[in-house]
Amino acid sequence: MNSANAQPIPRIGIAGVGLIGGSLALGLRRSWKTTTLIGWDLSSDVAEGAKNAGVLHGVVDSLEALLATVDVLVLAPPTSACASLLEQALTSESSDCIITDVASVKGPLTKVSQKFSVERTRFFVPGHPIAGSERSGYEAARADLFANHGVILTPDPDTDSASIDAVRRMWRAVGASVYEMPAKDHDAILARTSHLPHMLAFALVQALASHEDRDAIFRHAAGGFRDFTRIASSNPIMWRDIALNNPDALLDSMDEFEQHLQKLRLAIADGDGLALEHFFRNAKHVRDEFARSFDHRHEHEPSKASSNESTNS
Amino acid sequence: MNSANAQPIPRIGIAGVGLIGGSLALGLRRSWKTTTLIGWDLSSDVAEGAKNAGVLHGVVDSLEALLATVDVLVLAPPTSACASLLEQALTSESSDCIITDVASVKGPLTKVSQKFSVERTRFFVPGHPIAGSERSGYEAARADLFANHGVILTPDPDTDSASIDAVRRMWRAVGASVYEMPAKDHDAILARTSHLPHMLAFALVQALASHEDRDAIFRHAAGGFRDFTRIASSNPIMWRDIALNNPDALLDSMDEFEQHLQKLRLAIADGDGLALEHFFRNAKHVRDEFARSFDHRHEHEPSKASSNESTNS
Repeated sequence: MNSANAQPIPRIGIAGVGLIGGSLALGLRRSWKTTTLIGWDLSSDVAEGAKNAGVLHGVVDSLEALLATVDVLVLAPPTSACASLLEQALTSESSDCIITDVASVKGPLTKVSQKFSVERTRFFVPGHPIAGSERSGYEAARADLFANHGVILTPDPDTDSASIDAVRRMWRAVGASVYEMPAKDHDAILARTSHLPHMLAFALVQALASHEDRDAIFRHAAGGFRDFTRIASSNPIMWRDIALNNPDALLDSMDEFEQHLQKLRLAIADGDGLALEHFFRNAKHVRDEFARSFDHRHEHEPSKASSNESTNS
Repeated sequence: MNSANAQPIPRIGIAGVGLIGGSLALGLRRSWKTTTLIGWDLSSDVAEGAKNAGVLHGVVDSLEALLATVDVLVLAPPTSACASLLEQALTSESSDCIITDVASVKGPLTKVSQKFSVERTRFFVPGHPIAGSERSGYEAARADLFANHGVILTPDPDTDSASIDAVRRMWRAVGASVYEMPAKDHDAILARTSHLPHMLAFALVQALASHEDRDAIFRHAAGGFRDFTRIASSNPIMWRDIALNNPDALLDSMDEFEQHLQKLRLAIADGDGLALEHFFRNAKHVRDEFARSFDHRHEHEPSKASSNESTNS
């Protein structure tokens, strides 16, 4: 079960040294002491800073150089930059390493990948670690960011199985649980567990902020409201990019939500106590079941959400 | 500023000894050591149990008896029972004490009150402590439940000012901050800070529970989702009653929310990155400001929400 020390990968490259790339590097330095971690970032100050902070062993000054020198390349730039970075990597002559990424939406990467021959793309293993923080940058990186968190890989039937295995080993080495599913399923599921809730939280805060009694409303909002709207404090640029990259699944999920909200609306308008009780009772049952299973999966983990406004995209 | 020991009220009655009534009694026993706390509950086992557990000094076997013996009567039954209990109290011949209540919605109490002459209702001071827990019953009561929480009183222009003052002193004695506003404003504000978010959380969980990929969705939901849906684990009966008692303000708030969700929907469908960024940035700004101000108000309070699935109605 403990694969933390199984077959370390000798050289791993991190393209984009932010919270996610930095945390992966820190986690790997702890578990795989023989692995060399090399970084590249659009900003050479950031890359140098991460090296000086002990996050990386070394830095290079181009994606080309990184491709030429590592066994596994992890693309970890902001979501909006990931597809073009992948295109650049797949175009490169130096590209014979395994490539993976951490983007929150997989659809745009599938589109890029389809432009290339299978011979080039079979070493590309799309991935998404479901962990994050409201903070960003390698300065906020933590070796245990992925411990007990899920990572979803979305290889397709042509993807090289040894490459999938290497990427899986890498994430397990930092404590993550690794799942596999088609990219389309990933985007549909994340739309519902993450993207839709963020849209609802942003829309709620906007609705209250536009209200004429706005000051009184926020003065009397309590702890439940604070928890409920926590995700509306997430990075607006990241969420713009997620909404732009996953519109179909997101709009579908909003339609599904609307149907249930309308059902609830009707029961309220009709004063239908039985329907209301049934609706709330069923939701509570499902949510309690989820919370129990979530807590069971995370029981060995220090509480992060409460101390750290954590957001998961 | 510290009014905890100012002018204790000699005899206070609690009608309905659940979480709220029990916590008020425990808090008062700590601050006002000379006050006698007497309870009555529809279930005499509950009342006796609370007395034996040290929550109350004594119990009586009817609302009549309680009215005849106390200076201030606090109606603290479930929301659905509060209006009829008030009607009973105002009808009673023994009623010359100050009456207050803790119901989450004030409209139904205003309606009852309007059936009586001002001479009878001027000693009634409607109130709502904005604090709670997902647990219920006096067994879950805590002396500090109201510390640093708000209590909204909704007297009308005819209400006796000495009565308002007494109820205000009582809540301050257990550490609460006391506000005053018209009942209609209270119901409009709470619809937006509490009732609407609960409806959204219940509807989201119902939508996901109805999805064909339900199992995969809940398996991959993360900490942000857990926080966001916490309030969907609230008591279904209490929420049925709140929705039945505050339909107008709640439906208005749902309409306002819909407008903003539709705006967001359009921006997503149009791929309008500028509009999305503006929407998310503004929401984040408002929510960050709220969280700062909330944390400032609660900085001396031990973190309850994180340890205790707290819900505020």
